[in-house]
Amino acid sequence: MRCTICGRREAIYTRAYSGESLCESCFKKSIIRKVKAAISKYRMFEYDDRIAVAVSGGKDSVSLLHIMVEIEKEFPKAGLVAITVDEGIKGYRDEAMKIASKNCQQLGIEHLTISFEELYGYTLDEIVDISRDTGLTPCAYCGVLRRRAINILARRAKADKVATAHNLDDEVQTIILNMIRGEPLRIGRIKPVSASYGGFVQRVKPLCEVPEREVALYAYVSGIEFQDIPCPYAETALRNDIRNILNRLEEKHPGIKYAILRSAERLRPYLEKAPEVEMGICKICGEPSVGEICQPCQLLIKLGIIEN
Amino acid sequence: MRCTICGRREAIYTRAYSGESLCESCFKKSIIRKVKAAISKYRMFEYDDRIAVAVSGGKDSVSLLHIMVEIEKEFPKAGLVAITVDEGIKGYRDEAMKIASKNCQQLGIEHLTISFEELYGYTLDEIVDISRDTGLTPCAYCGVLRRRAINILARRAKADKVATAHNLDDEVQTIILNMIRGEPLRIGRIKPVSASYGGFVQRVKPLCEVPEREVALYAYVSGIEFQDIPCPYAETALRNDIRNILNRLEEKHPGIKYAILRSAERLRPYLEKAPEVEMGICKICGEPSVGEICQPCQLLIKLGIIEN
Repeated sequence: MRCTICGRREAIYTRAYSGESLCESCFKKSIIRKVKAAISKYRMFEYDDRIAVAVSGGKDSVSLLHIMVEIEKEFPKAGLVAITVDEGIKGYRDEAMKIASKNCQQLGIEHLTISFEELYGYTLDEIVDISRDTGLTPCAYCGVLRRRAINILARRAKADKVATAHNLDDEVQTIILNMIRGEPLRIGRIKPVSASYGGFVQRVKPLCEVPEREVALYAYVSGIEFQDIPCPYAETALRNDIRNILNRLEEKHPGIKYAILRSAERLRPYLEKAPEVEMGICKICGEPSVGEICQPCQLLIKLGIIEN
Repeated sequence: MRCTICGRREAIYTRAYSGESLCESCFKKSIIRKVKAAISKYRMFEYDDRIAVAVSGGKDSVSLLHIMVEIEKEFPKAGLVAITVDEGIKGYRDEAMKIASKNCQQLGIEHLTISFEELYGYTLDEIVDISRDTGLTPCAYCGVLRRRAINILARRAKADKVATAHNLDDEVQTIILNMIRGEPLRIGRIKPVSASYGGFVQRVKPLCEVPEREVALYAYVSGIEFQDIPCPYAETALRNDIRNILNRLEEKHPGIKYAILRSAERLRPYLEKAPEVEMGICKICGEPSVGEICQPCQLLIKLGIIEN
């Protein structure tokens, strides 16, 4: 089958939701276009932003780095830097760190890293050991601690924005999860561009309108090297169920993921009235915090790593 | 296993979402309690309302009638009447009409009926024939025409409210469907109590917090006679997929259906700002209408049954 865009080359992929069949070259261009459209629609960047791309080494974040390098060529005043958090997961993150660093070298992008050990005194492997009796799951505290680490690293990198690699599937899963958990007001808060407040580097999600399988295909046809083993601590609970359900639904009713994303966009203006989360400063670490003590410090206290 | 409420009788049913195991008697009482709680929470009725229960003959609507008779005993000034629309579906609705009527006789409830033939000049079977080339599905026009029929019949019955038998599963499916179809603002409009405007008898959903399987069990243990064959025109599209998905999720993560209902409730106050649908009068039939010509008349014109 011929590519429905150029009409010349052989199609390698058919988009059920749009009916297009695309050759490799037109497919790659279409991904860049989708990312540019999302950046402009949500006003993710200023023309002279210094952008820190959060690169874990997985397919989404490494692809995002390559795509951002491509797009940044048109914005000479903008700057790019890659940032990676080393949680300290033997046999997993160490591998991914090497892949992230190799991609940065190849692209000529500065690469800054930070480790849980440096920041919190312990690797994630060690914290998993310590936390056995707390009833907390590794994902629960790793998420909180990594979020903090990315923010600190982004400030070190003097970045104006942090770009994370959340794709369409991630966004849509989160929207449905919020409905299923009875927390629909979060749909108003979890946006492609995060709220801005002191001490917190704004986060943006340039891949938020690219389906996960198209990010994977982009990485594959671009010959991008990435890590594709899952994290050994990854939980396979509700989000995984929702991922599978949405994939099956999308197959039967193409376009459903985009429709859910649009639903969230239509809801958001109404949810702006929702009580804002008030930001202050954590009395322990001085980082931005919703309460007196920030989430990371609360966790570290619970784990016995720091004292209140 | 003993009933966790009375501690005396044998349990016949375990509610995964609450952990209760219930005997037949405590189960039936708990259903009445759930319905009463929903009625009072959403302020569905005034103490002296004349209530038309829309009875199709299926398990949900016949059970609703029995439950409403039970609850109405405590409200001597309130009145009940059953109303049934005969769409004209051979081998299906004719059966259901008999069952509906038998239940009304047994309960001593007045029973009013109206038929598509009387109202529109054609039975649904005939309209299905006429509409073959319109691209419309039977459910699409039957829904619109039945809605109109119920309203006219409710006015004939001099009812203050129409009670329909939508259960928790119906409500939750609709909420998710609205998200999946990109129409989330409908979540604000589809409430347990409909908006009130001239010529339109307000609708309420007393079973909206009772899971479908518990309505079925209520009918079964109460020895209620109902029709349990599906409509021959029933479509098995997206709603059916969502029904199955929600049932599987509820099994793995009990309480999910109630959580989704709560999500909708939490969203609604914010959606009140959403543009209201403005109601006028249809220039053809004089019934309440959103536009110049009401939906039923638009359909009848499309089918060539009436002229513009």
